[in-house]
Amino acid sequence: MRIAALQMKAAAGDVAANLARIDRAAREAAAGGARLLVAPELATTGYGAGEAIRDLAEPLDGPQVTHLAAISQAHGLALVAGFAERDGPQVFNSLTLVDGAAAPLAYRKMQLYGDYERALFSPGPLQTTLCRLGGLTFGFLICYDVEFPEAVRALARAGAEAVLVPTALPKGPFADFIATSIVPVRAFENQLFIAYANHAGQDDAFTYAGLSRIVGPDGSALAAAGPNEDCVIFADIDPDAFAESRAANTYLTDLRKD
Amino acid sequence: MRIAALQMKAAAGDVAANLARIDRAAREAAAGGARLLVAPELATTGYGAGEAIRDLAEPLDGPQVTHLAAISQAHGLALVAGFAERDGPQVFNSLTLVDGAAAPLAYRKMQLYGDYERALFSPGPLQTTLCRLGGLTFGFLICYDVEFPEAVRALARAGAEAVLVPTALPKGPFADFIATSIVPVRAFENQLFIAYANHAGQDDAFTYAGLSRIVGPDGSALAAAGPNEDCVIFADIDPDAFAESRAANTYLTDLRKD
Repeated sequence: MRIAALQMKAAAGDVAANLARIDRAAREAAAGGARLLVAPELATTGYGAGEAIRDLAEPLDGPQVTHLAAISQAHGLALVAGFAERDGPQVFNSLTLVDGAAAPLAYRKMQLYGDYERALFSPGPLQTTLCRLGGLTFGFLICYDVEFPEAVRALARAGAEAVLVPTALPKGPFADFIATSIVPVRAFENQLFIAYANHAGQDDAFTYAGLSRIVGPDGSALAAAGPNEDCVIFADIDPDAFAESRAANTYLTDLRKD
Repeated sequence: MRIAALQMKAAAGDVAANLARIDRAAREAAAGGARLLVAPELATTGYGAGEAIRDLAEPLDGPQVTHLAAISQAHGLALVAGFAERDGPQVFNSLTLVDGAAAPLAYRKMQLYGDYERALFSPGPLQTTLCRLGGLTFGFLICYDVEFPEAVRALARAGAEAVLVPTALPKGPFADFIATSIVPVRAFENQLFIAYANHAGQDDAFTYAGLSRIVGPDGSALAAAGPNEDCVIFADIDPDAFAESRAANTYLTDLRKD
């Protein structure tokens, strides 16, 4: 199964522009043979729009997710994208998976990072959110979540074969290590695939690190974007291609449960 | 506090030769200002000696650990080394910390790797073994243990500031990733130091990967050995030098406990 990840220069606060960019990326991903496209964290609003994000927050059945579902249906591929989810008085840093006419799935970020996110969002409940698609089991996390080994382990133990991670990782002294060491180690220590889709460029609040990647169960980068471009990357998710790695790195079966 | 790690070409089954090598390394480490030296997994017997390891196994108060304590006392530094520990009918893949005349500490490997180890050893109990030394709190793991995020996390949550890991990592398609990605990520995701002391060279059963290293809380290699040499490496363990990393990477305080 081929999947794609969108590394995106979002327009902070401009939902229409961001949906248009996701639409173009979905067209490119479908043309490249992908069955699924992953866009970054808060892709519809932009990550750095600050208080405006709360004003732009919508429920799962609101116009933004409905528009994403229409993009999915138009191009014939599933779409994962971050959005600000309103639920009564609360706003969550969420993602949705839309797949044509199917009911959209939502996941709410568990591990909020720093004062910026904690001022805007409520944390989601501890959860393992999974979805079957194209014969594979996908799990979902957002950004900082994936830096916690506990979160990926819980998905792996629940049966995830790939974890899809919209993210918004700013440039900084630790960004390269997070993208190029932590993300591959999360894949390796659970022998699964990870798609990590980041923003690039900058807004008033942040400059983003790019370095989006799709990594295999052996920790290798199957596809990787550079630090600065707005682009779509592709990789084939084939667990059978990593049988040697799974046979040698038997963490899930060896992990002591006593 | 300065510590040292011995990357060692052990003589499989030759305890006297291995103790002599550790003695020379302890002299070198002390001369270099180290307060502590970490030797590899099964350093006294060699890792690849097979069934002979069970015959050479001794209790914690046996001659091998007594000899290690004498080396520690002679050179005035603490010493961590792997040995095969007999306890009645059971044999454990253990390490000891000896520090002069103090009672030796033992840790028994929790996560045995592969058929070779499972045929020789009983697994140790799930445990968090800590020791105060030179004003710092050290935790202990052996080899495959450290590849499990759960094991390092448990030590970090119990207060470890550095984790000492005798290891025996053979060359192979995944060895570089384990030494240069997994070990640094374990340090980073817990914001602590890790000393990873491996064998080099070969015996009848294995060829070892070397790549011993001491890594800091930011994942950087403070000291690293190459793949093939028999050598002592040194690093200073100073948590205050990593305040920026600890302030930005607040995994231990942010980790959801609900």
